[in-house]
Amino acid sequence: MSVNKIDLNSDVGESFGNYKLGLDEELIPLISSANIACGFHAGDPSVMKHTILLAGQNKVALGAHPGFPDLIGFGRRNMDVSLEEIKDYVTYQIGALQAFAVAQGMKLQHVKPHGALYNMAVKNLEIWDAVAEVIAGLDRRLILFVLAGSKREDIEAIGVRHGIRIAFEFFGDRAYNPDGSLVSRREPGAVIHDHRLVAEKVLKMVTEGKIICKDGSEIRLAADTICVHGDNPAALQLVKRIRETLETAGIEIAPPATFL
Amino acid sequence: MSVNKIDLNSDVGESFGNYKLGLDEELIPLISSANIACGFHAGDPSVMKHTILLAGQNKVALGAHPGFPDLIGFGRRNMDVSLEEIKDYVTYQIGALQAFAVAQGMKLQHVKPHGALYNMAVKNLEIWDAVAEVIAGLDRRLILFVLAGSKREDIEAIGVRHGIRIAFEFFGDRAYNPDGSLVSRREPGAVIHDHRLVAEKVLKMVTEGKIICKDGSEIRLAADTICVHGDNPAALQLVKRIRETLETAGIEIAPPATFL
Amino acid sequence: MSVNKIDLNSDVGESFGNYKLGLDEELIPLISSANIACGFHAGDPSVMKHTILLAGQNKVALGAHPGFPDLIGFGRRNMDVSLEEIKDYVTYQIGALQAFAVAQGMKLQHVKPHGALYNMAVKNLEIWDAVAEVIAGLDRRLILFVLAGSKREDIEAIGVRHGIRIAFEFFGDRAYNPDGSLVSRREPGAVIHDHRLVAEKVLKMVTEGKIICKDGSEIRLAADTICVHGDNPAALQLVKRIRETLETAGIEIAPPATFL
Amino acid sequence: MSVNKIDLNSDVGESFGNYKLGLDEELIPLISSANIACGFHAGDPSVMKHTILLAGQNKVALGAHPGFPDLIGFGRRNMDVSLEEIKDYVTYQIGALQAFAVAQGMKLQHVKPHGALYNMAVKNLEIWDAVAEVIAGLDRRLILFVLAGSKREDIEAIGVRHGIRIAFEFFGDRAYNPDGSLVSRREPGAVIHDHRLVAEKVLKMVTEGKIICKDGSEIRLAADTICVHGDNPAALQLVKRIRETLETAGIEIAPPATFL
Repeated sequence: MSVNKIDLNSDVGESFGNYKLGLDEELIPLISSANIACGFHAGDPSVMKHTILLAGQNKVALGAHPGFPDLIGFGRRNMDVSLEEIKDYVTYQIGALQAFAVAQGMKLQHVKPHGALYNMAVKNLEIWDAVAEVIAGLDRRLILFVLAGSKREDIEAIGVRHGIRIAFEFFGDRAYNPDGSLVSRREPGAVIHDHRLVAEKVLKMVTEGKIICKDGSEIRLAADTICVHGDNPAALQLVKRIRETLETAGIEIAPPATFL
Repeated sequence: MSVNKIDLNSDVGESFGNYKLGLDEELIPLISSANIACGFHAGDPSVMKHTILLAGQNKVALGAHPGFPDLIGFGRRNMDVSLEEIKDYVTYQIGALQAFAVAQGMKLQHVKPHGALYNMAVKNLEIWDAVAEVIAGLDRRLILFVLAGSKREDIEAIGVRHGIRIAFEFFGDRAYNPDGSLVSRREPGAVIHDHRLVAEKVLKMVTEGKIICKDGSEIRLAADTICVHGDNPAALQLVKRIRETLETAGIEIAPPATFL
Repeated sequence: MSVNKIDLNSDVGESFGNYKLGLDEELIPLISSANIACGFHAGDPSVMKHTILLAGQNKVALGAHPGFPDLIGFGRRNMDVSLEEIKDYVTYQIGALQAFAVAQGMKLQHVKPHGALYNMAVKNLEIWDAVAEVIAGLDRRLILFVLAGSKREDIEAIGVRHGIRIAFEFFGDRAYNPDGSLVSRREPGAVIHDHRLVAEKVLKMVTEGKIICKDGSEIRLAADTICVHGDNPAALQLVKRIRETLETAGIEIAPPATFL
Repeated sequence: MSVNKIDLNSDVGESFGNYKLGLDEELIPLISSANIACGFHAGDPSVMKHTILLAGQNKVALGAHPGFPDLIGFGRRNMDVSLEEIKDYVTYQIGALQAFAVAQGMKLQHVKPHGALYNMAVKNLEIWDAVAEVIAGLDRRLILFVLAGSKREDIEAIGVRHGIRIAFEFFGDRAYNPDGSLVSRREPGAVIHDHRLVAEKVLKMVTEGKIICKDGSEIRLAADTICVHGDNPAALQLVKRIRETLETAGIEIAPPATFL
């Protein structure tokens, strides 16, 4: 990670058919990497095409955001799928999105598993390894987004083994445990709602490579990309605040392909 | 079309989850081009991967077989979708299948729309044009499979306009009208069940470029690929008979990428 | 139809999983009959349960709103399904919704086909007949909602034949042709946006049994229920205006089970 | 349980669209209770209707076989769904099936959760309780099928609490642990393939209320219904053998509604 460049990523393209979700038009100009739903947990072919167009117009890097085949649960429910199934689902979804990028003269930058798939991977390195294997088989230039904070050496080893780059991801609005893991959403204080605190937390992580944990302790945590949200106007305000805080500090917001 | 080469294509990879359909293991060694379902009307990611593996082992050319998002109707029911939706559905499905091919060091040869999508295109050139546009945007080496027999100049013009190759397709087990169109399945005699007659009909088309229509008249009909089926042991017997008839006559069975 | 009672119906329960659609909380208190999506084109089991609860709290009559199995197209795309398939899809969806009603000590009042299924039925009496047959087989107290304006005798005959009641439906915000059919949405002026005009049109239909057509001619048109919408705040305003206009004229808004 | 009556149940109606699964025509005449898939993990509306017809013609009792919304995984993969979601999914599926029964003048006898939902319930009594609550809300005459062998008092208490009957289920082709639980399929010897052994095991359970466990120990195990399969001709042979063995011993094969 470069101290003067950082990526802002967000989940986009989550509409489906007649259903609209997220403020993509307003959000996409504010981020540098777009995680685009691929039709399993959200997104449909037409939404994917339009989202890629929108990201392209805003010079935002494109990423596949593959999830479980669980539209009704938005891909947020753990499913007891095999590693082979995970590889097949991820291959399918990356390929589908890649086609829309190719059709518009673009290419994908990264892959970020969605929801339950991401959360299950955080607890089971074999899933990160499976996704890395898929990427290596498709296009080694694709960067894998992985939660920063714990098991860094193991995850870096996965990247080396498969010959792909890893971008470590930080959640500015989430509280961390002293071991670098996220405080569970079931615990009070897991999500930080104060925009000023979030922006400060992000700035400290970017400039110092450190964060203050929920218990007040300070730990090292280096990340390449910060996850932000565009669900509602307040979320957009937070993204703007994070951008301003970073830019004021001389940090450039740029996709990880430019600095990893 | 070369008179001494012809393609045999068949729909494969139509299983889904716990559901098995078709005798792919026996059929694939008998054909030269495989139309692989892409998950909308049939097929799932794991089936797609296994089907590509199986086709690769048998040196059979790979094709995408995109259909309507209608698993319950097996993609056989006409749907009033827009041309934009068709393009998006076809892009998505080609991309998804392409990823499995790439992951195994292979590439797709062709695209054959499935079921109702194919039938609707036969009646509406705008659909062939839409699919051709998708192919041109993804990979101009992909060959589009189109029903032989009618509107040939229009379809060739579509190929020229988009810079892609067309493979015209013949149905040996179907009766034809004198205008080169297929006799509707709702009419008696639409499907020819006598294996000897089918094999003779195929041979005549391949060697003479002519067929005998349902009313006994003879018309010119040139095709590059013959559609065969592997639903049951009798269907496999017919494929073997067609192969033998062709090979005995000195015709080589080969995928259209080798002669178009 | 009684001149001093009229029903206001609206499509509700169209959310799905993480996707919210419609202002059901605000809309349901304003209507007398709720057409509840049943999971095929919209709605999911949890949404169905909550919508039934909400309707029950507001003393609004419950109706099944079955559609095609086309979530991505919101059930708005014609599908070439057989009458048998239609009967099976409608049976399934009515049954599923009925269970949620029963579980909360309620029962369904009516059935209104959704989107493309409704539109196809308007052009093909066999579909109304198929739906009526399903209703007769399940519960003859269920009222079938059918477009008013044309083929009234044929539709009444269907009701008589199956021993069920028909509620004829009027669209206050749509222009009509002199033959009593709706002006196609593809034509300019098909939808009336002026709230005052819509309210007047509804009042005239309710009190006089007449409407002014697009070409200025006046025709007889009697209906039992008026379709209203709750997609956005403006739509809610229109519903309120229609209610006020009717109530000021001494018309009672009540579900058709109370007067048919 | 009565010592001279026992139920044979089997999963049927698992076809979907163009996909055929199971030998329902041959199997249904051999069983007394049919667990009919309801469209989530298998089955579609048309299959449900035909299966109910077939069961009715054979005087076989009808049961709902609700599963997870996971067609691609055939409902066999654990999903981290909430109890509320389970209740809503089960309500929906029972209702849908009930409608087909009502339309043919029949009614459902029982509910047997499918696959992962059943397996998760075996490990989590709250799921049995949730399903029992749904049944109580819909129709207290519906019998809940639950794995025999462990937690019997707890499950009986659930039945009492909700005022519904429980039918305890025995798997004749599965090895049991001394605590009455099934030997995991991941262990060798979990499934018994010798038809004679299975038939003897079933007979011993029915006549003595005892089984021999995998380790050779004998335990008490009383059940009301025996699960059999119709996937292939060999499975059908086993069902016939079980029937003959029981009938020769004077045991009547009858649905649990006749003796519980």
